[in-house]
Amino acid sequence: MKKKNIAILGSTGSIGTQALDVVRAFPEMLEVTVLTASSNADLLIAQALEFRPAAVLILHAEGYQKVKHALGHLDIVVLCGEDALQEVVQRPEIDLVLNAIVGSAGLRPTVAAIKQGKDIALANKETLVVAGQLIMDLVKQHNVAMLPVDSEHSAIFQCLLGEEQQAIEKIYLTASGGPFRGKDRAFLTGVTKQQALKHPNWVMGAKITIDSASLMNKGLEVIEAKWLFDLSVEQIDVIVHPQSIIHSIVQFRDGSMKAQMGLPDMKLPIQNALTYPQREANEFERFNFLNYPTFTFEQPDVQTFRNLQLAYDALRDGGDRACVLNAANEIAVAAFLEDKISFIGMSDLIEATLCQQKKIDEPSLEDLLAVDQQSRIVARDLIDKIQIK
Amino acid sequence: MKKKNIAILGSTGSIGTQALDVVRAFPEMLEVTVLTASSNADLLIAQALEFRPAAVLILHAEGYQKVKHALGHLDIVVLCGEDALQEVVQRPEIDLVLNAIVGSAGLRPTVAAIKQGKDIALANKETLVVAGQLIMDLVKQHNVAMLPVDSEHSAIFQCLLGEEQQAIEKIYLTASGGPFRGKDRAFLTGVTKQQALKHPNWVMGAKITIDSASLMNKGLEVIEAKWLFDLSVEQIDVIVHPQSIIHSIVQFRDGSMKAQMGLPDMKLPIQNALTYPQREANEFERFNFLNYPTFTFEQPDVQTFRNLQLAYDALRDGGDRACVLNAANEIAVAAFLEDKISFIGMSDLIEATLCQQKKIDEPSLEDLLAVDQQSRIVARDLIDKIQIK
Repeated sequence: MKKKNIAILGSTGSIGTQALDVVRAFPEMLEVTVLTASSNADLLIAQALEFRPAAVLILHAEGYQKVKHALGHLDIVVLCGEDALQEVVQRPEIDLVLNAIVGSAGLRPTVAAIKQGKDIALANKETLVVAGQLIMDLVKQHNVAMLPVDSEHSAIFQCLLGEEQQAIEKIYLTASGGPFRGKDRAFLTGVTKQQALKHPNWVMGAKITIDSASLMNKGLEVIEAKWLFDLSVEQIDVIVHPQSIIHSIVQFRDGSMKAQMGLPDMKLPIQNALTYPQREANEFERFNFLNYPTFTFEQPDVQTFRNLQLAYDALRDGGDRACVLNAANEIAVAAFLEDKISFIGMSDLIEATLCQQKKIDEPSLEDLLAVDQQSRIVARDLIDKIQIK
Repeated sequence: MKKKNIAILGSTGSIGTQALDVVRAFPEMLEVTVLTASSNADLLIAQALEFRPAAVLILHAEGYQKVKHALGHLDIVVLCGEDALQEVVQRPEIDLVLNAIVGSAGLRPTVAAIKQGKDIALANKETLVVAGQLIMDLVKQHNVAMLPVDSEHSAIFQCLLGEEQQAIEKIYLTASGGPFRGKDRAFLTGVTKQQALKHPNWVMGAKITIDSASLMNKGLEVIEAKWLFDLSVEQIDVIVHPQSIIHSIVQFRDGSMKAQMGLPDMKLPIQNALTYPQREANEFERFNFLNYPTFTFEQPDVQTFRNLQLAYDALRDGGDRACVLNAANEIAVAAFLEDKISFIGMSDLIEATLCQQKKIDEPSLEDLLAVDQQSRIVARDLIDKIQIK
């Protein structure tokens, strides 16, 4: 069997490092061809020395000389910057691009890779949140595979194997509810980033962990699901399942439902995306009902966790609204992590940004990239006002 | 689209009447060609007048004249007896035979239908319990579809769509636990047939309801699953799930699990088998998490419910053991329903029959039919002794 050549964008992050664990487990199947990182030069160097990719890229200029110096004597191309990032994903030997970049910065490399006919393993949900329609049009046009890495979307994807898209009646995305499940707005006002960074079930990066605590992550997933599976907003429901064993559910038009389940471990959906269409045996710990004798389910509290409602509203409103929502949220999360706004202030900031940014109905990719930048400026300007409230 | 011509064996029973409900719902897709009943002449006549099949058959001679008289003026062949049952399933216009006969009497018509290249929708699990190896060899040889109707096996079948058989690591058959879940042997000694006939979740015929209360039904399902899905005994586990929402689960070799779920309504797996490979929209009530906010799971108590252990042992021992187990169980259930033996006496009777019948290692179909008859004689003779104990 020919090895699958993989480019890993964001290789030093949580998804990226776990993806390399998966590559280590299947050395006869998977080959790392490109590694890219934002700024962690030391880890990128170590990864490159182990996996010997054809090219590595560091986004921020500060680390470039260090990486260049460490790898210069090897047969590894060392690159730097955003433009090079879009070029490196087009290398002819790449079969699959795992996009594990955080935030809407992941959009342009995804577009470049699709246009070169590369299959995509998408951990960067912002790509679809910002430009879902355009991306999925490109996916069809270039006939590439769009493989979800989010555990929920991987679950839906797995449940749909052997099924027809038109047989879907609705889907349920499950949500753990995060560390603040059951809390009220008064409680949320005072929570610290330390509290918000403690996810009960999943080990993830900082941005997505905060998004999980605020339910924005689930909102972004609703938008992602709409595009990945070609659904209407009404076909997508969220159900809180604190044990995080059932990762999501498809209900078909005959009333039958299929759920994908397992221990909450991101390595499983990552492996699934990298080895698709094969299911490869692994040594991951297995689920045991005796350790999880009870599954519970409850409605999400969208009055308290307003971000989820804001995401649904943005999806319903269409146009560039999800792009604005996402950009404002990235600024909001950063501001919360810098103690500039409160936890519930994040929703206020997103809502205020949506209000200020005039809606564009049928944005082009260029429009969306501009809206993304503009929304960040608006959101940053609004931080002081939100803080005062 | 050409209509699918269906023969329904056991049309007046619980599965049969629900299958006709499904046919009523999809008149443009499904056509009833043959109806057969054991002895309920009145209902068979009513069904024939509504669905106008090419042929009807009543097994027991008493009802024959009545059916013949009622339908004689119509273009419907009226038949009677076991030999005619094997012939009628071979009629050339039949595409699919739904075998909803109760007990091992379902074996021979299944064989006859497979040999004529008919697809099988199997509600008669005893067919596979008695002669699983031989039946599945015939299924392969004649390249027919074997579609499960049991909700558990339908669940596994649905979870395996789009998946490879060799990717299965194990399966979990879920069990409600029946009306006596959590009870001890002292309690079971005194239970009445009225208590045993009250299943908490499923509306089914008398035989299978008693089997559900004694967990023999789950034991027979373990054996059925082994043959349907080509598994080893070690790959089949049973987990008690009293809410009966998750109908069964497949665990794959990557650790990912898929579960099929929904409200406990036999019409769903019946529709699934009859309309396969299509999923057709229906108006059945949908599952709602708010009505089932908690799923629980526990180990089955095989010390108290010995039938499940006896079934596992029979499957491990191989040869004709499952055939003996099944025959003895049919006699035991009948004896319990006639107040001749106690509820826990059923296990004693089955075990004693297995002891008395010398094992045959590689039985032919004829051997199995003989063992089935012989085991019934042995079991009947043993009833008095069991009663005395």
